[in-house]
Amino acid sequence: MELNDLPRKGGEWLLGAGPESDIVISSRVRLARNVDGFAFHTRLSAEQQTRLERHLRRAVLDAKVVGNPIYINLNETAGVDRLFLVERHLISKEHSLGEGDRAVIFDRDETVSIMLLEEDHIRLQVLRSGLQLWDTWEKATQADDRLESFLDYSFSPQYGYLTACPTNLGTGMRASVMFHLPALQMSRQMDKVLHAVEKMRMVVRGLYGEGSQAYGDFFQISNQVTLGLTEEEIVERLSAVVPKILEYERNMREVLMKNDRALFEDRVWRARGILATARSINSEEAMSHLSSVRMGINLGILPEVGLGALNELFILTLPAHIQKLAGRELETAERDQKRAEFIRERLALN
Amino acid sequence: MELNDLPRKGGEWLLGAGPESDIVISSRVRLARNVDGFAFHTRLSAEQQTRLERHLRRAVLDAKVVGNPIYINLNETAGVDRLFLVERHLISKEHSLGEGDRAVIFDRDETVSIMLLEEDHIRLQVLRSGLQLWDTWEKATQADDRLESFLDYSFSPQYGYLTACPTNLGTGMRASVMFHLPALQMSRQMDKVLHAVEKMRMVVRGLYGEGSQAYGDFFQISNQVTLGLTEEEIVERLSAVVPKILEYERNMREVLMKNDRALFEDRVWRARGILATARSINSEEAMSHLSSVRMGINLGILPEVGLGALNELFILTLPAHIQKLAGRELETAERDQKRAEFIRERLALN
Repeated sequence: MELNDLPRKGGEWLLGAGPESDIVISSRVRLARNVDGFAFHTRLSAEQQTRLERHLRRAVLDAKVVGNPIYINLNETAGVDRLFLVERHLISKEHSLGEGDRAVIFDRDETVSIMLLEEDHIRLQVLRSGLQLWDTWEKATQADDRLESFLDYSFSPQYGYLTACPTNLGTGMRASVMFHLPALQMSRQMDKVLHAVEKMRMVVRGLYGEGSQAYGDFFQISNQVTLGLTEEEIVERLSAVVPKILEYERNMREVLMKNDRALFEDRVWRARGILATARSINSEEAMSHLSSVRMGINLGILPEVGLGALNELFILTLPAHIQKLAGRELETAERDQKRAEFIRERLALN
Repeated sequence: MELNDLPRKGGEWLLGAGPESDIVISSRVRLARNVDGFAFHTRLSAEQQTRLERHLRRAVLDAKVVGNPIYINLNETAGVDRLFLVERHLISKEHSLGEGDRAVIFDRDETVSIMLLEEDHIRLQVLRSGLQLWDTWEKATQADDRLESFLDYSFSPQYGYLTACPTNLGTGMRASVMFHLPALQMSRQMDKVLHAVEKMRMVVRGLYGEGSQAYGDFFQISNQVTLGLTEEEIVERLSAVVPKILEYERNMREVLMKNDRALFEDRVWRARGILATARSINSEEAMSHLSSVRMGINLGILPEVGLGALNELFILTLPAHIQKLAGRELETAERDQKRAEFIRERLALN
């Protein structure tokens, strides 16, 4: 299966390229769509779901929304492979845990991915490296337009796109930016920032969406409101929040470098030392040290390691990735050893 | 002052040479002596103490007990220098904190050191690298004999050498061996070992004698009884205990390597990584990692670093040493930074 080619590289969105890539990991737009003639997902019988899955698959492939597409039916996919897709941000956790025929279709760069029969019939996602919200949105809209010419979307003149959950009504759009905010986290300023962000009707989540913790000091900020705004207004509002967060983080980095330089340097150097030598490391600890190293490189404290290689490791060292890399299921202790080995090999820090 | 030449090297006893030097750091014999015509130290007036100090100094120097001697009057010595001597095991903590004229005379190898007016008038110590108890004892006895021809020792035919504290009566001798027992400590087996050792009427202490903790997994084992045994019997009894402790530690290292190899390797490698990269480290943490690295090298897990260089660091990274190295008094934070820098420079691990 093509999945086996992926564990040694990340999607294009992990490149560490694009504007503000010292702090902004990625920009993302996702659209929720449903099609006429079928009930919402939860109301479908297994047979109806299978029929709809085929219908949607054909439309996506015929519309050529995704160039050189990889199609994966999750109902025929092992648990570790489904988790692998979650770790790569190609599907949601909910989608991996769903039932019956459901699928994901994505391109080899992993820029566009389309989940079939997640909460909605269609969840179209575009994910790009760095701060490129407008560009990301444009790509999503183009894909959506193309798909719409092959499918009858459920649309109400009053409410806009109809979605399984009313929080997605209207545009059905969520735009989000993934930030790396180690200095704010380290100085315990995140709560303040989160509070300010929530006042602007934005939602803050961890690396893996709802309910996921801020592992590795990653924070995803996205719009709360989908209804009563145009897609452009959503992108505009989110775009307006971003510079403030960049400024908070940059200021805090300066403050730390000025007031606690020794402590700060010690932290990033030790993180590097541990990653370079550990023989066993769990993914949470690995993330935390990778985060420190990432900041250390961005601040010129640590010698250069490609930002792309580093970004990738946040994903490639997750449990399913480590098991795909090994080519078999591993116990926790084995995973921790394999992870340490892979990090040493990848970063070649010694 | 000659003390300023010392902070970059350890005494000869730290060489990491001598039998069993993977586990035995050093062998030590000390003799407590007092001279006739003077009360015990605590009963002396300041004038009497000064007079006795001069008398003893002249005798030690005339007897040529110590070749090429360094004489230091602690009453004229700054606190940081006194602590420096304590850290090098040339004087006791009590001696550094005493009052009035009192001194230490030692040779440039730091093999023989003689404290004047510590608890007793004379405390003669011989310290050697590795397990060399008999040799150490012989050296001490020779020095003692030579000194005795220049001084009238307080001696009772019934009790032997008279000492300020009755626990030293008789031979006035304490023989001790300093062990490095990281595997026993790591596997929480030390309590059992200590219990067994105490049953053999031996005393266990840390790196700095009475009341000092087992920093760096160092344990000093010495005879409890000084009265009713000959000096030879004391050395013999201690010598009989040593192989048992060596065996306990070696067995435990094997067990750990067999059952917990991954964890074990991880610990020693991480210790190396932290020492190679930390920008700030306190002496307790440094000791703990140095201890792990020492074990890792002895077990062939880590690449070679001279055992002597490593042994030295246990002493050279202590607070007074770091300040002597810097040439001035340092705040704790500065010390921690200087220590990290010195370890990186010394071990050149990167």
